[in-house]
Amino acid sequence: MDPYVIQMHGHGNLPSVLDVHVNTAGRIPVPGKMKGRKARWSVRPSDMSNKTCNPIRAIVDSMKVKPNPNKTTISLSIGDPTVFGNLPTDQEVTQAMKDALDSGKYNGYAPSIGYLSSREEVASYYHCPEAPLEAKDVILTSGCSQAIELCLAVLANPGQNILVPRPGFPLYRTLAESMGIEVKLYNLLPEKSWEIDLKHLESLIDEKTACLVVNNPSNPCGSVFSRNHLQKILAVATRQCVPILADEIYGDMVFSDSKFEPLATLSSNVPILSCGGLAKRWLVPGWRLGWILIHDRRDIFGNEIRDGLVKLSQRILGPCTLVQGALKSILRRTPQEFYHNTLSFLKVGIEMEQFPEFENDVEFTERLVAEQSVHCLPGMCFEYRNFFRVVITVPKVMMLEACSRIQEFCEQHYQCAEGTQEECDK
Amino acid sequence: MDPYVIQMHGHGNLPSVLDVHVNTAGRIPVPGKMKGRKARWSVRPSDMSNKTCNPIRAIVDSMKVKPNPNKTTISLSIGDPTVFGNLPTDQEVTQAMKDALDSGKYNGYAPSIGYLSSREEVASYYHCPEAPLEAKDVILTSGCSQAIELCLAVLANPGQNILVPRPGFPLYRTLAESMGIEVKLYNLLPEKSWEIDLKHLESLIDEKTACLVVNNPSNPCGSVFSRNHLQKILAVATRQCVPILADEIYGDMVFSDSKFEPLATLSSNVPILSCGGLAKRWLVPGWRLGWILIHDRRDIFGNEIRDGLVKLSQRILGPCTLVQGALKSILRRTPQEFYHNTLSFLKVGIEMEQFPEFENDVEFTERLVAEQSVHCLPGMCFEYRNFFRVVITVPKVMMLEACSRIQEFCEQHYQCAEGTQEECDK
Ligand SMILES: Cc1ncc(COP(=O)(O)O)c(C=O)c1O
Ligand SMILES: Cc1ncc(COP(=O)(O)O)c(C=O)c1O
Repeated sequence: MDPYVIQMHGHGNLPSVLDVHVNTAGRIPVPGKMKGRKARWSVRPSDMSNKTCNPIRAIVDSMKVKPNPNKTTISLSIGDPTVFGNLPTDQEVTQAMKDALDSGKYNGYAPSIGYLSSREEVASYYHCPEAPLEAKDVILTSGCSQAIELCLAVLANPGQNILVPRPGFPLYRTLAESMGIEVKLYNLLPEKSWEIDLKHLESLIDEKTACLVVNNPSNPCGSVFSRNHLQKILAVATRQCVPILADEIYGDMVFSDSKFEPLATLSSNVPILSCGGLAKRWLVPGWRLGWILIHDRRDIFGNEIRDGLVKLSQRILGPCTLVQGALKSILRRTPQEFYHNTLSFLKVGIEMEQFPEFENDVEFTERLVAEQSVHCLPGMCFEYRNFFRVVITVPKVMMLEACSRIQEFCEQHYQCAEGTQEECDK
Repeated sequence: MDPYVIQMHGHGNLPSVLDVHVNTAGRIPVPGKMKGRKARWSVRPSDMSNKTCNPIRAIVDSMKVKPNPNKTTISLSIGDPTVFGNLPTDQEVTQAMKDALDSGKYNGYAPSIGYLSSREEVASYYHCPEAPLEAKDVILTSGCSQAIELCLAVLANPGQNILVPRPGFPLYRTLAESMGIEVKLYNLLPEKSWEIDLKHLESLIDEKTACLVVNNPSNPCGSVFSRNHLQKILAVATRQCVPILADEIYGDMVFSDSKFEPLATLSSNVPILSCGGLAKRWLVPGWRLGWILIHDRRDIFGNEIRDGLVKLSQRILGPCTLVQGALKSILRRTPQEFYHNTLSFLKVGIEMEQFPEFENDVEFTERLVAEQSVHCLPGMCFEYRNFFRVVITVPKVMMLEACSRIQEFCEQHYQCAEGTQEECDK
């Protein structure tokens, strides 16, 4: 009997779930050689998914603490500027999207690296004499996250390593480890405005180092590197011949006392992939438009790395075409005043020895939720214990309320090592 | 001397490119152990990017043939319904996007698997008694391409294999091979309306088979499997305990003489990940919204595979939030008449022995460009030699013109094996 003939049961009934009954009486005359899959179900997740861990999501989602029901919840944990409506995007940005929609021209497939015209716009927006850019140097991606993914995927093989800041944005590690790439953490120095510990950085470089990740301005530190410090970083890369992935998504989002310098404007030697996007500066993180700017004036990446990025972009194709279509107006028409609505990040250290009740920063932030209903991210999310991070993208009254609650919390739990309680009341 | 002190040259000049000069006179007192990266640049693309090949893009982009300058170009190669404006999306779809924009509620970060409310909409749209769905069974992705990527990534490890149809959509292979997953091609039978050769399929299954990819309705064949054939496919999966990735992006896009049956409605045994999206049915492929529907009534995937998919979605986050926000209205308000603007694909066989001038299907399609300025995809793109594929998403007059040019081309090159030229003139 043909094993591919199906015997159907309950034929007379209404068609409900049709379970397939296979004739397995006697040996099935299986065609070809049967290499014996086990005759029971066992579907396990891959190593890649097991190795994939996004600590912000993991810690936030697994924090099972109930907020204090008597206090409204204030979240200073996820830096989403859009949730309170106090930081809306510019009206030119919204209009640009409507125009793109109405044109009917941006519904179809774009090239996997983005429309040529949109790439031209990004190139001319970021072009400068010290770091020239053309459309061919731009790849549009699904958020800055995919930009970082493609850069790591093209530069590093499993078993190689990348250098990543501590404290730092956890996505570098999430992406690298999912691909079997080792992560080495170099220190930032809180006492030096979170500059890179260059000796430590250089000591980590070995023959398996595929790239150096530099995040400037920094999440979570909020620091902006000086030109001089950037040149020293470039000197390390030059000496060690290590290409740089510059995560500059917060570029230009600095308070007026500091100045952001794109890394690529300071060197014509070091090959640099600069990652950015619309998320932060234009306040539309959900729209998922990012980019890679390829700076390679010495032709060290060459066509091979460029082609590699193009090929990798063809796996899932690029960002939403409507946003691509709107890019020109977004970049050209957004008024300067809008950018002054700058946002940034604060970081707050915890003197853990003064809080003997709490084991660590995770417990500190959990108790803050339980008692004061204020959500912050523990430093652990950024590989940096005994700090917690607050975002300052919430409305001012909420920020003030949060501060006073954090103050109350600290007053209740702070214990002086020696001396009287009064000394603490400052 | 501190090697991290930079000596700057040309201080008096205008700041142009600042090349970093490092003091390398004498031995550099390098901190820690120096594991000697070579002191010259060598940046090579990773194995992953080398292994990534999208044959449609590769063949189309490397086809250097100039079209006949005396004929306007007609492209029947890439099936983008939007390029000619003859198949616009529905006006409700555009309106839904405008409403999402105006609400100001869909600019921020969504959960990486998509807004709960949007996942609820997809669940209830595809829910049916035979294959129930809730929001927790839906993952929103950046196009159906990312849906397929996540499914393969969670189910298969490097070294395992997946079963893929020939002829078939090349993305399965592109994605699998980039991840080190082996691809085994099972045959579709042109003489049986492109049904699966089930014996061949089953003979390919071994202990390393991680999943079976079923594409129904099929690209490029345009075929729609009968309920009976689908049950036989499920029987193979049941017998061999192989989960199924059902690529059902063309679901419901069938001519009235056939009926599309979602695979999951026909079995409660076999764990199925069904992939789909807005691209084809709603004619907005550029918007990059896809989904995974998890059907697992026997709890064979269990929480592990679900969690694995969630973790993988956190690597680059999900699709554009505006499109997510518009989903509810898109699914609920698009009028039935719109769906009748159905599109589908034709496939055309080439009797190569009658075209002795041409080596193969690639040369056939190249000469068609050179002489008639008509672009088609050679069967090679779908692992199927001696066919070419034409899309029928172009306006009718263009399609008619293309057909008459293809006819002219065949008349000029067709050679009867025996018999007279007249016999060919049919
Ligand atoms: C430093 C840094 N890089 C990259 C990203 C990712 O940006 P996107 O949302 O565009 O993927 C973020 C988002 O928070 C970030 O803080
Ligand atoms: C069979 C099939 N699956 C998946 C896709 C990818 O769809 P998307 O553009 O949503 O990524 C396509 C696109 O052509 C397709 O034909």
